Amino acid sequence: MVDRRPYDAILFDIGDTLVRAAAPGTPVDDLRVEPLPGVVRTLQALARGHRLGAVTDTAVMTEADVRHALRGSGIDELLEVVVTSADVGAAKPDPRGILLALERLGIPAEAALFVGDADVDESAGGAAGVDVARVSASVDLAGTVRSALAARAGAFAAARSLVAPVDDEAGGRALALQDQLTKPPGALGHLEALGVQLAAIAGASPPPLPRPAAVAVFAADHGVVAEGVTPWPQEVTGQMVANFVGGGAAINVLARQAGATVTVVDIGVASDLDALGLDGAPSLLRRRVRAGTANLAAGPAMTRAEVQAALDVGAEVAATLAAAGANALVTGEMGIGSTTAAAAVIAALTGRTPATVTGRGTGIDDATLLRKVAVIDRALERLPADADARTVLAEVGGLEIAGLAGFIVGGAAARVPVVVDGVIAGAALLAALALSPGARPYVIAGHRSSEPGASAVLEVTGLRPALDLGMRLGEGSGACLALGVVEASALVLREMATFDAAGVSDKA
Amino acid sequence: MVDRRPYDAILFDIGDTLVRAAAPGTPVDDLRVEPLPGVVRTLQALARGHRLGAVTDTAVMTEADVRHALRGSGIDELLEVVVTSADVGAAKPDPRGILLALERLGIPAEAALFVGDADVDESAGGAAGVDVARVSASVDLAGTVRSALAARAGAFAAARSLVAPVDDEAGGRALALQDQLTKPPGALGHLEALGVQLAAIAGASPPPLPRPAAVAVFAADHGVVAEGVTPWPQEVTGQMVANFVGGGAAINVLARQAGATVTVVDIGVASDLDALGLDGAPSLLRRRVRAGTANLAAGPAMTRAEVQAALDVGAEVAATLAAAGANALVTGEMGIGSTTAAAAVIAALTGRTPATVTGRGTGIDDATLLRKVAVIDRALERLPADADARTVLAEVGGLEIAGLAGFIVGGAAARVPVVVDGVIAGAALLAALALSPGARPYVIAGHRSSEPGASAVLEVTGLRPALDLGMRLGEGSGACLALGVVEASALVLREMATFDAAGVSDKA
Repeated sequence: MVDRRPYDAILFDIGDTLVRAAAPGTPVDDLRVEPLPGVVRTLQALARGHRLGAVTDTAVMTEADVRHALRGSGIDELLEVVVTSADVGAAKPDPRGILLALERLGIPAEAALFVGDADVDESAGGAAGVDVARVSASVDLAGTVRSALAARAGAFAAARSLVAPVDDEAGGRALALQDQLTKPPGALGHLEALGVQLAAIAGASPPPLPRPAAVAVFAADHGVVAEGVTPWPQEVTGQMVANFVGGGAAINVLARQAGATVTVVDIGVASDLDALGLDGAPSLLRRRVRAGTANLAAGPAMTRAEVQAALDVGAEVAATLAAAGANALVTGEMGIGSTTAAAAVIAALTGRTPATVTGRGTGIDDATLLRKVAVIDRALERLPADADARTVLAEVGGLEIAGLAGFIVGGAAARVPVVVDGVIAGAALLAALALSPGARPYVIAGHRSSEPGASAVLEVTGLRPALDLGMRLGEGSGACLALGVVEASALVLREMATFDAAGVSDKA
Repeated sequence: MVDRRPYDAILFDIGDTLVRAAAPGTPVDDLRVEPLPGVVRTLQALARGHRLGAVTDTAVMTEADVRHALRGSGIDELLEVVVTSADVGAAKPDPRGILLALERLGIPAEAALFVGDADVDESAGGAAGVDVARVSASVDLAGTVRSALAARAGAFAAARSLVAPVDDEAGGRALALQDQLTKPPGALGHLEALGVQLAAIAGASPPPLPRPAAVAVFAADHGVVAEGVTPWPQEVTGQMVANFVGGGAAINVLARQAGATVTVVDIGVASDLDALGLDGAPSLLRRRVRAGTANLAAGPAMTRAEVQAALDVGAEVAATLAAAGANALVTGEMGIGSTTAAAAVIAALTGRTPATVTGRGTGIDDATLLRKVAVIDRALERLPADADARTVLAEVGGLEIAGLAGFIVGGAAARVPVVVDGVIAGAALLAALALSPGARPYVIAGHRSSEPGASAVLEVTGLRPALDLGMRLGEGSGACLALGVVEASALVLREMATFDAAGVSDKA
């Protein structure tokens, strides 16, 4: 199954959907267009994969008048067509405006979505035969469109469509602010770069705090354990899920310290979690795509449909956590055998040899390491040289790796920083960026895992980790520990005095 | 002025001074000796520079009986003499026991301190002509002895005398606990080493949290600015003191995040701080040894007496903060021109060339860097090849560098971790370890400053920094930012589940 473009075209009402509505009767020359928060970035994202248009009711304004009014807002140039009620001589709920827009685009009604805020929008859309989605006081344009696209083609496709460019203007303001704070220019090192990144992600300088953060621990089993690539029994994956739910794992401790929530996602555990007493545990999401992958040494780890399902689970979890108020997401995972799949994915997506990206995981001996590398070497022989990310995930990946790829793209779509750590999340990151390169500026590397594959990912992506503590635990532990550093980068921008305010002399 | 040994001998009462007192009339064979918390380490520290003895009132026990009872407690072997009231036929307040102990040691009364908990101890000591110090419910043995030694020979000498070995047994228990926690052995990397270190420092596994922490920012000016080694005007030092007091500097932001206090110490600022409105500021300690150093390019930066005074200020600040409840100390500093003095101290104490340990500080240009290196080269020509740390501090040091050296030793004496960051604190660390090598295991490197001298210090001391973020601000910013990592190392030991408790299978 391939990812399909959810709709060919998306049409929008303008007033209270894209911009704050003007009072009825405002003279055209007095109109001051104020885009609703985040709308320009949402349209920029959607314009990459869709044709966009607007259908608006106006008293007297024509398309030219509306376009003139929108000029400078960043919206005008993204709308391929603009149809006004004055142009067609009929206001919504009459469908004629929508139908004219479709006709001008040459798009059938079933390939279009209409987004508005009012009953007349819903009626007009229904009459025109297009799907309709409504923004409201509680769900903004991005959230509304995300739900509609997810219902049509899955959460991952929706997330991909909504990954917007970061706000470089806000990033630039944060950069300028850094030099006004009472410190020598650049003296806060990487902290300054992180602060600028947070500003660009949020579209605000100083940026909001990346708090509360939400850790999602994707748990899955790996059929490749049959090859003897790890001394740990497979049952540990489920037992650790119980440990996460019980709050006793490292990630629980570190998340509590950071004020972050921990959500555990069973995306592919082999064990019976009910038998472990986890039925109804509120922090556990039951999203099992299958009970562990097949042995990647013997054939594909999973089907392409399972890859898609796992991507969708990850994107949906990200959207749900962000909608619930998470201002940063942290990638976490658990799965006995996972470093074998991760190394295989990293080798495939970077072109590096398995020997250079395969590590000792939980601490295996030399003989096991040789076996692990041989297993990966053999599995990669099945892959065509130009295998795309979905093929790689299906052949040699893991359910949590695909889930995390979806989660990363979902976080970028929700415009929150996604803090990534470890070799499993690193493999997921490569897949995420292959499928959605625009997610890159939303990603923060939390920690440099001691696994060699993790360093390969950092090199290829050019990400600089906040921490380098020689950790190799997974679970998202390194990323969670990095949250304090990430938060500090926002705090200094928000709270430090400027030279002027503090009465400190600048250098000669 | 040289550091003099405060007393040649220290004598102790035993019951309720060194060990929990037995109920009167307890049969000798039923005596179970329980040293009061921390007493063994205090005696171990004091035994390195003093002769120790005990003078105790007993019903019938002789020296041999008391030594027998103390056996296995770790105390017996540290006491050169033990005199009991049964041995001399007179109980305190009669001074005969103390006098016999002095006689056996061959020490005059004026060279000895007697430490007890009761009125009779005070009376007996007074009658014997020795100085007396009393432990109480609120001040333990170490605190009592520290105050007495500080009154006699200064806070730094007292601190040096009280730097105890860390508790390797507690460290060993923490190490063993790491392997029972639900994670692969060693998977938390440097975090595990930090946790073991905290346990060894505190003498407890799991260790207490290093919280609250206290940052001390030692501020001082440097006469070497006359050489044009920095583009910043000297007045900035005082202005930044005002900024610290006002809460607007980076260290204030990072300390608030970490829940740490910030104490600013004027140990040698050149500006009039009253004119900056800082009279009576509660977070500012006025401990000015002199108004900035002399120009180290032209002659000694300060006298040896000023070095001693600065060491005492630092040790006293550490003792005060620890007594007020700080469970970790953070080295901070501010002073225009400070990186020149720090590089000179580092070059002198490591034997490396100034060119390799001198950096750009706040970001100076090539010409200024060359001038800075030349100034240091020239100044170091005045130093004998085997110059000791005090000589180095006097010739080319800074008041805040000497203050921080005292602060580090003072923190070690108080048995709290001292988190060190940056090139100024690095220079101070070298001086501290030269004067008190036993302080080393109490030191945690917070961050690797981008200044080359800081890396030289890390190499020479073998310390691994918790963070490496390319910061070069000073103020203690990097160390403060590292507190979250240090705290995490204790949290995992305190809160993670063990394999047994969580029902997780260990590896095969």
